[in-house]
Amino acid sequence: MRELFHQQMNRLSDTIVLEAKAVKKAMNRASVAMRDANLAKAEKVIDADRKIDFFERSIDEMGVSILARQAPVASDLRVVVSALRVSSILEQMGDLARHIAYVARSRYPHAVLPDTALGVLVKMAEHASSMAENVALLIETRDLKFATAIEEEDDFLDELHEKTFSYVLDNDLDLTRQEIIDIILLGRYLERFGDHAVSVAQRVQFMVNGIQDFSDPFAEVDLTEI
Amino acid sequence: MRELFHQQMNRLSDTIVLEAKAVKKAMNRASVAMRDANLAKAEKVIDADRKIDFFERSIDEMGVSILARQAPVASDLRVVVSALRVSSILEQMGDLARHIAYVARSRYPHAVLPDTALGVLVKMAEHASSMAENVALLIETRDLKFATAIEEEDDFLDELHEKTFSYVLDNDLDLTRQEIIDIILLGRYLERFGDHAVSVAQRVQFMVNGIQDFSDPFAEVDLTEI
Repeated sequence: MRELFHQQMNRLSDTIVLEAKAVKKAMNRASVAMRDANLAKAEKVIDADRKIDFFERSIDEMGVSILARQAPVASDLRVVVSALRVSSILEQMGDLARHIAYVARSRYPHAVLPDTALGVLVKMAEHASSMAENVALLIETRDLKFATAIEEEDDFLDELHEKTFSYVLDNDLDLTRQEIIDIILLGRYLERFGDHAVSVAQRVQFMVNGIQDFSDPFAEVDLTEI
Repeated sequence: MRELFHQQMNRLSDTIVLEAKAVKKAMNRASVAMRDANLAKAEKVIDADRKIDFFERSIDEMGVSILARQAPVASDLRVVVSALRVSSILEQMGDLARHIAYVARSRYPHAVLPDTALGVLVKMAEHASSMAENVALLIETRDLKFATAIEEEDDFLDELHEKTFSYVLDNDLDLTRQEIIDIILLGRYLERFGDHAVSVAQRVQFMVNGIQDFSDPFAEVDLTEI
């Protein structure tokens, strides 16, 4: 029973590492698809999203199965609960990479945007890729230095996001309405990708460190409507 | 022990109903804040988001506490796991309502947008409010007719979302760049709100009906990288 339990916990951890690596690859490819108007990369991101969704469903089923049959406690319980939450955040990150690939594909063989506008977004995407790399490393190693790196990188991503607005609001720059739509939506997808990376970082911190007050959560909730 | 268990399960269910009702109120108020340039409503949405976040954290802690101490199985386990997932989706819905309130507040005392552009977004927001109402009813009653209603309403929300793009792309309509940004972002927030409502509907269906194949999720995962 204990051996089976450890096998299952390892399988769960392996699967979430694979999901994180798949998300990292997706954002890498989406970044290149956008930068180089690379259709093949865009198609790969779109296809690979089904695999990410499959990983999420598998982790869900594995997690529930472990909870039902093994009733884990303490740090094992935290790992299972965190896996369920993290896999669902990773799935949303995969969707965002897919949205970026859709935009790249829909403009092919043309570039998504004129050079100057593209520059900021490519920087955001490269930054998002680096955050996804750190997310995969964090999940694999559980070394919290990667969580710190993710949080720092997100501040920089937000700064770049602000720049996309200044760019669009500069009436001296010639932009079609479609280009404005693309800049705003791509910027939003990338900013959200970063937010989700931060959520994963916080979840893994919880998994490693535990909850501060595990005493009686039921005592604390004020059940009044707002 | 069993009595305590039932008390805790009820408390968990009550809290998630409260979270859903808080989200419903937030989207209602965000809708009015946007339609009428109503600053007080916008402020209420922004303030109430802290309460929604608190509900989510409480449900998280309650859920983990129940799993650790009571090791629920079968339908009780599904309820706990679903509560953890649904509360996190509701929290994201609350954030989207808050984003809408931010836009309304930042334009006050002016309207967010000129009348015609505002019309489609107000329709989307009213639709999103109705979906949030059905989400709260679904969670409270577990009657799956509300899940069906949510899925149908989301199709209509997506149609309205398409209209916002046609509107922006019509060069005969006079729009400032800030107005274009607002239409695109508000449209995106509302569309995502609808997607999240559909995710809740699917989660509650899972909670009520169970997983189809609970046999051996570990046998099925192909652990190859992509």
